Amino acid sequence: MLYPGATALDLIGPLQVLAALDQFGLGFRTVVVAEHTSPMATDTPAGLTASHTFAEVPEPHLVLVPGGVAGTYRAMADPVLLDYLRVAARTARFVTSVCTGSLVLAAAGLLEGRRATTHWTQRDLLAKFGATPVAERWVDDGQIITAAGVSAGIDLALHLVERLAGAKIARQVQLFVEYDPQPPHGPLDWSAVDIPSYRPMVAGWIGEALADHPELRDRLLA
Amino acid sequence: MLYPGATALDLIGPLQVLAALDQFGLGFRTVVVAEHTSPMATDTPAGLTASHTFAEVPEPHLVLVPGGVAGTYRAMADPVLLDYLRVAARTARFVTSVCTGSLVLAAAGLLEGRRATTHWTQRDLLAKFGATPVAERWVDDGQIITAAGVSAGIDLALHLVERLAGAKIARQVQLFVEYDPQPPHGPLDWSAVDIPSYRPMVAGWIGEALADHPELRDRLLA
Repeated sequence: MLYPGATALDLIGPLQVLAALDQFGLGFRTVVVAEHTSPMATDTPAGLTASHTFAEVPEPHLVLVPGGVAGTYRAMADPVLLDYLRVAARTARFVTSVCTGSLVLAAAGLLEGRRATTHWTQRDLLAKFGATPVAERWVDDGQIITAAGVSAGIDLALHLVERLAGAKIARQVQLFVEYDPQPPHGPLDWSAVDIPSYRPMVAGWIGEALADHPELRDRLLA
Repeated sequence: MLYPGATALDLIGPLQVLAALDQFGLGFRTVVVAEHTSPMATDTPAGLTASHTFAEVPEPHLVLVPGGVAGTYRAMADPVLLDYLRVAARTARFVTSVCTGSLVLAAAGLLEGRRATTHWTQRDLLAKFGATPVAERWVDDGQIITAAGVSAGIDLALHLVERLAGAKIARQVQLFVEYDPQPPHGPLDWSAVDIPSYRPMVAGWIGEALADHPELRDRLLA
């Protein structure tokens, strides 16, 4: 799924992995759905265009919601997008998200009583919607599978390919996208990250993006 | 840089990382250049749109060429794109590529005598343009820095941020895109990959994409 202002890598990381499944002759077809199929701005200088409208794909087998900053908070208040997710969730085998995309699932009422994750700066917000925040790279809670921030969508998508088509094909997809990560400075050092110190920054983002939606803003900032 | 048929993640992985630099007040501005700014098809169901034309950004400080399959072979025969790269390379501090984007640099004559890498299926092709193929995640040969396949662009981009702005900022960007990779089945097992067995597949791609460019096709297939 795409919406204006999404983080481009939240969508394109998993999309590159999931779309590879279409080549295996198993009947999978990957599409990008949005309210319309004109270019949408992202949080990068690249625009992104969906291949299908929401109306054209009412019953996806799997749906994935990318995150972002201002655009994502506004998506949490978008009735068309939330309705699409609620209806899709009735029949979808998997309802998934990357980064703050899980806040959109939460706003649609889909995370109540669920274990879930999101970008590390905003994990605490999930509890405001009845979810249990979990500090893991991805959290598989059955139908609902959520990933941590931005690049975690690639790990999530390989897990999804395994759930959909088995470990052998997941390994082949990993080989083709040459996912053999070597961060120049190694993995993140979480012991050096003071998460609460970032809360004022997040509160500023929310206050600005949701000026026209005071009820949701206050729920998030409470 | 964007062109029709590029692999979406080759561009968006590094773009998400490099665009984060724009937030640090160091004077960097990240853009996406292409022949035009209308949506272009990628190798996924998502379309991508550049923010600027080639003509608008004649002297980039850094240029990055994404890879792909058919679209990339055709880019190797696109005089407008190759001219842009040759002229940009005269003043750019860094000329970089992800995946088979290095074949486009090679076709522009920019890899002669250079150490370089590309997607594992096509590393041998670099030698046909005077480059020394290297099996590394990214290869820093001074002005020219090339990355391995698809997802390697994220590692490359963190290295580029470090070259441009130092290790401290590179680590902050890594934290914000939460690049703490956990491939579900661990790193790739290269000892299990029979690279020569994929050559007929690659030859088929090249033969089909370059039917109208027999000279380049024959050079690649020789």
